[in-house]
Amino acid sequence: MRRHEYIQILDGTHPEHGRTIGLLHQGLIVASAAAISLETVPNLAPWAKSALATFEVFILAVFVVEYIARILCAPKPLAYIFSFWGIVDLLACLPALMFLSPQWAAIRSFRLLRLVRLLKLLHANRALMRLEAAMFQCRSELLVFAFMAALILYIAGVGIFIFEHEAQPEVFTSIPVSLWWAIVSFTTVGYGDMYPITPGGRIFTTGILFVGLGVIAVPTAIITTALINTDLRESIEKEIEEELEDIEREVRKDLAPLKRRPTRRPKT
Amino acid sequence: MRRHEYIQILDGTHPEHGRTIGLLHQGLIVASAAAISLETVPNLAPWAKSALATFEVFILAVFVVEYIARILCAPKPLAYIFSFWGIVDLLACLPALMFLSPQWAAIRSFRLLRLVRLLKLLHANRALMRLEAAMFQCRSELLVFAFMAALILYIAGVGIFIFEHEAQPEVFTSIPVSLWWAIVSFTTVGYGDMYPITPGGRIFTTGILFVGLGVIAVPTAIITTALINTDLRESIEKEIEEELEDIEREVRKDLAPLKRRPTRRPKT
Amino acid sequence: MRRHEYIQILDGTHPEHGRTIGLLHQGLIVASAAAISLETVPNLAPWAKSALATFEVFILAVFVVEYIARILCAPKPLAYIFSFWGIVDLLACLPALMFLSPQWAAIRSFRLLRLVRLLKLLHANRALMRLEAAMFQCRSELLVFAFMAALILYIAGVGIFIFEHEAQPEVFTSIPVSLWWAIVSFTTVGYGDMYPITPGGRIFTTGILFVGLGVIAVPTAIITTALINTDLRESIEKEIEEELEDIEREVRKDLAPLKRRPTRRPKT
Amino acid sequence: MRRHEYIQILDGTHPEHGRTIGLLHQGLIVASAAAISLETVPNLAPWAKSALATFEVFILAVFVVEYIARILCAPKPLAYIFSFWGIVDLLACLPALMFLSPQWAAIRSFRLLRLVRLLKLLHANRALMRLEAAMFQCRSELLVFAFMAALILYIAGVGIFIFEHEAQPEVFTSIPVSLWWAIVSFTTVGYGDMYPITPGGRIFTTGILFVGLGVIAVPTAIITTALINTDLRESIEKEIEEELEDIEREVRKDLAPLKRRPTRRPKT
Repeated sequence: MRRHEYIQILDGTHPEHGRTIGLLHQGLIVASAAAISLETVPNLAPWAKSALATFEVFILAVFVVEYIARILCAPKPLAYIFSFWGIVDLLACLPALMFLSPQWAAIRSFRLLRLVRLLKLLHANRALMRLEAAMFQCRSELLVFAFMAALILYIAGVGIFIFEHEAQPEVFTSIPVSLWWAIVSFTTVGYGDMYPITPGGRIFTTGILFVGLGVIAVPTAIITTALINTDLRESIEKEIEEELEDIEREVRKDLAPLKRRPTRRPKT
Repeated sequence: MRRHEYIQILDGTHPEHGRTIGLLHQGLIVASAAAISLETVPNLAPWAKSALATFEVFILAVFVVEYIARILCAPKPLAYIFSFWGIVDLLACLPALMFLSPQWAAIRSFRLLRLVRLLKLLHANRALMRLEAAMFQCRSELLVFAFMAALILYIAGVGIFIFEHEAQPEVFTSIPVSLWWAIVSFTTVGYGDMYPITPGGRIFTTGILFVGLGVIAVPTAIITTALINTDLRESIEKEIEEELEDIEREVRKDLAPLKRRPTRRPKT
Repeated sequence: MRRHEYIQILDGTHPEHGRTIGLLHQGLIVASAAAISLETVPNLAPWAKSALATFEVFILAVFVVEYIARILCAPKPLAYIFSFWGIVDLLACLPALMFLSPQWAAIRSFRLLRLVRLLKLLHANRALMRLEAAMFQCRSELLVFAFMAALILYIAGVGIFIFEHEAQPEVFTSIPVSLWWAIVSFTTVGYGDMYPITPGGRIFTTGILFVGLGVIAVPTAIITTALINTDLRESIEKEIEEELEDIEREVRKDLAPLKRRPTRRPKT
Repeated sequence: MRRHEYIQILDGTHPEHGRTIGLLHQGLIVASAAAISLETVPNLAPWAKSALATFEVFILAVFVVEYIARILCAPKPLAYIFSFWGIVDLLACLPALMFLSPQWAAIRSFRLLRLVRLLKLLHANRALMRLEAAMFQCRSELLVFAFMAALILYIAGVGIFIFEHEAQPEVFTSIPVSLWWAIVSFTTVGYGDMYPITPGGRIFTTGILFVGLGVIAVPTAIITTALINTDLRESIEKEIEEELEDIEREVRKDLAPLKRRPTRRPKT
């Protein structure tokens, strides 16, 4: 096996061993993310704590070994070290270097950068490429939508502050806080931490929410149209092309005897 | 009437009696589901309790009779008993076997498996087949979406924990709990049991919710595109085909006198 | 002016006076709906109460006059009295008959039936007809969706009851109550009156909400596809037809001299 | 540089200097909006207060200078002063005229009108024009939807009042208040300030929410269809046209020798 094949294995793109090793590798990153999140649970049982600590050592060992392997196998080791992925891999290993120190918890979270690697697997994915193409195609529409949404949010925040500040000075304390209400309401999350209680504020909210419903429908419409544009148009184009080629062939076949005549005639 | 006709009647697919018996059968399953749910209501009136108990006996009797009838009518009784549907039917009858025991409540819930039978009715449904075809067609896009949604959820959960843990240690106790907040917020349910209160946490939430709105728009766009692809393309294809056949016929008709000439000419 | 013209005026379909009178009429119904809703406000100022009472008398007078006018102008008065709209109009007037009695409040709400009249105006509306056509076209898909949504709701309600009943016996008291939670969560309303607190219940909710997001995307997809099917297909069909007729004409024109030759030849 | 070029610079449409100055100008409006919102934060640090006051003076100075510059550069100064934008600009400057008076806070908010200017930048935007065209195309469908949504909201509000008023007289106090519940629930915001607790009210809400889910799906479907209609149809039309022109050319080329013959024949 050649060097570049080792890298293919680590990247999960090797034709033979790639799939298995790749999946194991990705699984390890996911497990590592789960471990980081579990460690924050308060009052963990001692056995769980030590299990997580052991798993931590194991994960770090694997990452360090992988980092060294990648440097050794890279056609240009220095280029790899200073590449984007090289730095990500280094940051993921850093905790290992200061393992014994008690302050390493913060640095450990750099490991989360490895999650970016998961996106790598997707790069060859056809479905993602189609989604990306659609998103790229409608980027200016989405920008216009984001701009208009921001404007409506600002108007909603200022408006609700004017209506509700006097009635609930403890809740709608300032415009920035009212903007938070506007965001929570417009996205239809509605936590219930802030809501209008005056008739004026409620009528204003009704108007603004009705506009909001329309605005929220827009990105769905934009993305759908873009997806159909890349997807459906392609297939309709192909369909029409094929059909028209068929008819062209048929017409040409019908015309063939007519065309041959002029060339045959001189012979007679 | 032959044996297989009895099974058709029980399955609701018999040409004559199928519809009525089938609907009664399905209605019984739905009623049974309703009864199971009503029994959990605390402080039921005694008459309601006894009515539910009587209905219970009736339902079980019907299911036992049906199970025996299906074994008797099956072309291969053993094949039926060990088939998926046979086991579902047996589990639905099991409570009858231990009717007098007071611990049968738990086993009774196996009867819910019968709900699966309701899905059976849909198998011949054209609308469902079209939906299924569309879903199948866009399965990889939906998978990519689910993966990206999971990634954003993880980032949101970790991020909000970093921002809010210090300010609300009793609410955002750990990352897994923060993930719960992320799920409730991203699906725009927003129970109000957890919400950010720090400016940092709120700005972070705003950003993540804006991305979330876009992400939530994506599955709608994907499914719509797939539905249109299976639905509209088909009809447009047919339309184009027909139209082009028409024009082909017309052109051929116009060309016919030209084509006949060469063969007629030798005669002159 | 003839009798049927008076009815056209009342219906708002008269070519000359219809628009104004029709709008006034509809406006009165809306104002009446607003008045009914305002009367329920507690602690109304005395002037507001008397204003609403006066308006009430006015509205009733108008409705009674209209009812009598419709009977007088109808080509077949009896047919009108026993028609659907005749009964609606009578029920709207009934309060007038028992105006002095203090118990008429309940009967007055029959007047809300007049709101149905507002729908009448829409019947000639082209946009509504297109929406209706689209809805009708996809009715079986929507039914399948409703059935599947109901099934998922039932499973969600039973599931959350199993997970949360022990931890929150005061909140998730029974399966019917848990179904209410399922509905509030699935529609992403999320009042916050009930929510899972156990890890098991939260993980279950996460799974069920993810499925729910997909399911909620489906009716949008179905309606969009149906709307496009009635709308876009029509226009594409027309487009293709026109284009193909054009090319047909062109080809025929090109073939014309060829076709004329055989008839010209005998002359030579 | 000519006069009208100065106006182009201020409007951000000048070919050379427009972009930079335009962006600065727009940025200033956004910063001014942010400043207005920050001033409402209670208990600001003294340094922040004085910074905001200084920024206030600066903004006002810029706006006054701009207003004077626009009058001087306008081809018809009076026409500008009494135009829509002229009045907006004047209202934005007004605070400067009464700077020393302590009551100017209210008038200052006129400055927010300048946000309208941000929309000006978008006027030449192609993506917005397409969105606008789509919105305009489906305006009657959206109106019908708004009408039906309003009707359902009214029915929901009256219905929940009937079901819940007795059980929660402190929450569902009147129909207008119940309408507020209907709006918050239909838009799936669900603050949690009001929710039904009686079985009847909950079953009613379930029915109304299921209809609501369908209704909320409608505007998305309408806008998507309109966007596709303007977008996709255009491109499919172009596609078909091109393809058909191709085949027309091909057929004509094939027919060319046939057509030339009749004219050549007389020569022989």
